[in-house]
Amino acid sequence: MLMPTTPAYDELTRTYQRLHRLGHLQALAGWDQAANMPPKGSAARASALAEMAALLHRMRTEPALAQAIERAGAEALDELQRANLREIRRDWRLANALPESLVQRRQLAASRCEHAWRTQRPANDWAGFLDNFREVLALAREEAERLSQSLGLARYDALMECFEPGLTGAVVDRVFGEVRQWLPGLIRRVRDRQAQEAVIAPVGPFPLDAQRRLCERVIGLLGFDFDAGRLDVSTHPFCGGVPEDVRMTTRFRADDFLGSLMGTVHETGHGRYEQNLPRDWLGQPVAEARSMALHESQSLAFEMQLGGHAGFVARLAPLLAEAFGAQPAFAPDNLHRLMTRVKPGFIRVDADEVTYPAHIVLRYEIERPLIEGVIEAADIPALWDAKAAELLGLDTRGNYRDGPLQDVHWPEGLFGYFPCYSLGAMYAAQWFAAMRRATPDLDARLHAGDFAPVFDWLREHIWSQGCRWTTDELARRASGEALNPAHFKAHLEARYLA
Amino acid sequence: MLMPTTPAYDELTRTYQRLHRLGHLQALAGWDQAANMPPKGSAARASALAEMAALLHRMRTEPALAQAIERAGAEALDELQRANLREIRRDWRLANALPESLVQRRQLAASRCEHAWRTQRPANDWAGFLDNFREVLALAREEAERLSQSLGLARYDALMECFEPGLTGAVVDRVFGEVRQWLPGLIRRVRDRQAQEAVIAPVGPFPLDAQRRLCERVIGLLGFDFDAGRLDVSTHPFCGGVPEDVRMTTRFRADDFLGSLMGTVHETGHGRYEQNLPRDWLGQPVAEARSMALHESQSLAFEMQLGGHAGFVARLAPLLAEAFGAQPAFAPDNLHRLMTRVKPGFIRVDADEVTYPAHIVLRYEIERPLIEGVIEAADIPALWDAKAAELLGLDTRGNYRDGPLQDVHWPEGLFGYFPCYSLGAMYAAQWFAAMRRATPDLDARLHAGDFAPVFDWLREHIWSQGCRWTTDELARRASGEALNPAHFKAHLEARYLA
Repeated sequence: MLMPTTPAYDELTRTYQRLHRLGHLQALAGWDQAANMPPKGSAARASALAEMAALLHRMRTEPALAQAIERAGAEALDELQRANLREIRRDWRLANALPESLVQRRQLAASRCEHAWRTQRPANDWAGFLDNFREVLALAREEAERLSQSLGLARYDALMECFEPGLTGAVVDRVFGEVRQWLPGLIRRVRDRQAQEAVIAPVGPFPLDAQRRLCERVIGLLGFDFDAGRLDVSTHPFCGGVPEDVRMTTRFRADDFLGSLMGTVHETGHGRYEQNLPRDWLGQPVAEARSMALHESQSLAFEMQLGGHAGFVARLAPLLAEAFGAQPAFAPDNLHRLMTRVKPGFIRVDADEVTYPAHIVLRYEIERPLIEGVIEAADIPALWDAKAAELLGLDTRGNYRDGPLQDVHWPEGLFGYFPCYSLGAMYAAQWFAAMRRATPDLDARLHAGDFAPVFDWLREHIWSQGCRWTTDELARRASGEALNPAHFKAHLEARYLA
Repeated sequence: MLMPTTPAYDELTRTYQRLHRLGHLQALAGWDQAANMPPKGSAARASALAEMAALLHRMRTEPALAQAIERAGAEALDELQRANLREIRRDWRLANALPESLVQRRQLAASRCEHAWRTQRPANDWAGFLDNFREVLALAREEAERLSQSLGLARYDALMECFEPGLTGAVVDRVFGEVRQWLPGLIRRVRDRQAQEAVIAPVGPFPLDAQRRLCERVIGLLGFDFDAGRLDVSTHPFCGGVPEDVRMTTRFRADDFLGSLMGTVHETGHGRYEQNLPRDWLGQPVAEARSMALHESQSLAFEMQLGGHAGFVARLAPLLAEAFGAQPAFAPDNLHRLMTRVKPGFIRVDADEVTYPAHIVLRYEIERPLIEGVIEAADIPALWDAKAAELLGLDTRGNYRDGPLQDVHWPEGLFGYFPCYSLGAMYAAQWFAAMRRATPDLDARLHAGDFAPVFDWLREHIWSQGCRWTTDELARRASGEALNPAHFKAHLEARYLA
């Protein structure tokens, strides 16, 4: 009789296969909640999702799992199995660091705060928000403290570990510290230069049906597989579902098509990453997307690196004319000017790629001391005002709605995520620099409307690698170096000041 | 310290609450599979649903559950709790009667047979179908045998018990035996009478958008709550989801709007039953719909009793003219003749309410001896031909596609369900007879376009009762008697021969 040589490891893979399958139902229900669910279904859906979350948490914290992980570590595993075990161990440590009662209290406080925030934001009600937010913050600090002890990391680093394994505040400080040096000056120079350019604005309305067809066409051009995914509508666009069935959402406004279109291009980057994760290992942690910064690097590679490239814009221009009828704004040159227009504004999600990092630096410099207990929730508005003036040249005083109340992250107790957005933008620039080295005629091919070199490079170096390597190792294998923000600065200078 | 007086019962309610919440995710994923899922999501969805089915089966067959049921039976329960315990015990007995290996083999054989059937049906390939169907039948017989031993019921009765608790072959024999006596003669008399009527057919095409808006408007008229449910499109219309979030589907054909519209009216009957189940007990078996015959009695109360009523047709007529433009076919009298046209046909789901029972009697008289081992799968076509000639006056020889291959039930191993359709039609007639006694001016009010008396009666007597009573007791409380098919015969005579 032939015994398996890796019984403990095999047991782990069965458990994670089950977690993956049940997670499929969880992901689908989350997508449906945003895209389809009628209002009266809300309470039942919340209960069903909470039940599933508790079930998955129990499976992840089964005492037998710890022993299997221990024993698997002594088995003869190949390189891929070792990578999978590394990711399983990481998942186990994160799941087991928090007692279930804390997970529940945090979930309840976040639900309460987020629900009230939906009306407090339009009402500009900072004081009302503060009442709920204090509890959210207290529980996030408790979470950070527990994770810190369990993982042996500083408190804010321990929160970032949930989204970007291995990322530390020291790295973010260094990277964002550099950005702080050159970004305000760069924004000024770009603004001066663009002040002399004339840009013709598109004239609406833009019928929603035509917008939808346009989005589907552009997504198709970008290689999204509609046999393994869908595009639907939700209030807040996102990319959900599972790798075999990716559910992207967008939202349409009759007076503006560009926001929806480029938002959809952004989600398509997430979507193609998911659709092209390694199929042979599917269901195991090693087959999942590497991290949130890497995920954002894909969405921003699509939306910013490719989406803002003159070659893409030229490919887009005739599609716009087909969708909405010809108009002067759709001339490729004008369209490119329109799509690369830089203007500091209050709202992060509406920001261009040049001013976007300022929004992230601002939030990072507030949420990190907040988690560390250096400042309190009540200190946020004054800090926000000072940093918005310094980084973006904006006066935000008294405008909580478009200031610290604008994002869903803090009401939901989500701290440590914001840096991933800007690191993603930096990685995306680093990938394109590597692509240009690998394919010297890359820009010529993009100008000719041939985007295949981008997709091929990303598939080979990022998508197909899943969680096989750490983020640093993946970046080195893909581009020859770990995160190097110089590529991002060079990209902005090349696109906006050359 | 106050101890709960019903600890075992309380433990059971917590378990069933969990089953209900996880069942929510299962129901949603099932709906999405039919309404949204892209083709490449199929394998992952099947695995996820199988994982969930296995999980729920394990929860239902936990040994501790048997002990809790035993102990709860000795606790001081009120009438509602006793009814809930009765339903829990029934669920437990059905779940525990079958070993998991049989459940899995049955599921696999059914999947294989159903999948092949999708192409075998259009190809009229009875021989190919038979290859897979023999295994499906063998496993259904094994299931019937196991259930029979566990429940102390005859084998076919044990299968019906899964859909209509308490229903026996003896009752079905008696009821269908009567139908056999009068139905062929009634069909002939109606056909003779209608032969003299001129009916103008509607002229298409009927744009799908207009059909969709029309369906939504009619569903709204019928009281469906769109804040607690949706209407979407799927190949085979059904009503799924959960009581708080009912997901109905339909399908549209540009050359015919009536099939889709009346199919949607049918699903709305199911949908309103679900939406109006007792909210206070939601999550417990006692709050679920009573049975499948009762469920069909609601869909047929909407589609046939109300939908074929001249008052409903008169309300519908102007909506059709609005949706598609005025045409002679939409005159109320003509529309009513069109919607009550009787014509024996091959396809059950397209049948009118007069010939429909013949389709069911035919299937019952084949599937019962099939389960009992009196006949074999290869005997089906000859029996089908003989019974179709006798009951419907149709020649079905060699036409397997529109004969025994037409329904999904047998490929899926679903035996014992068919009788529920006709018992549902009979119950629906019985409810309307009771309504007419309670509201003597019911027809006048329906003619005036006021459908509220129907909804109020169904809500009070059926929807709000959930599983509080057995089917017989519910029927007696609602209408003064257990199932009495005389009301159905009287209804057909009044509508088609008066």
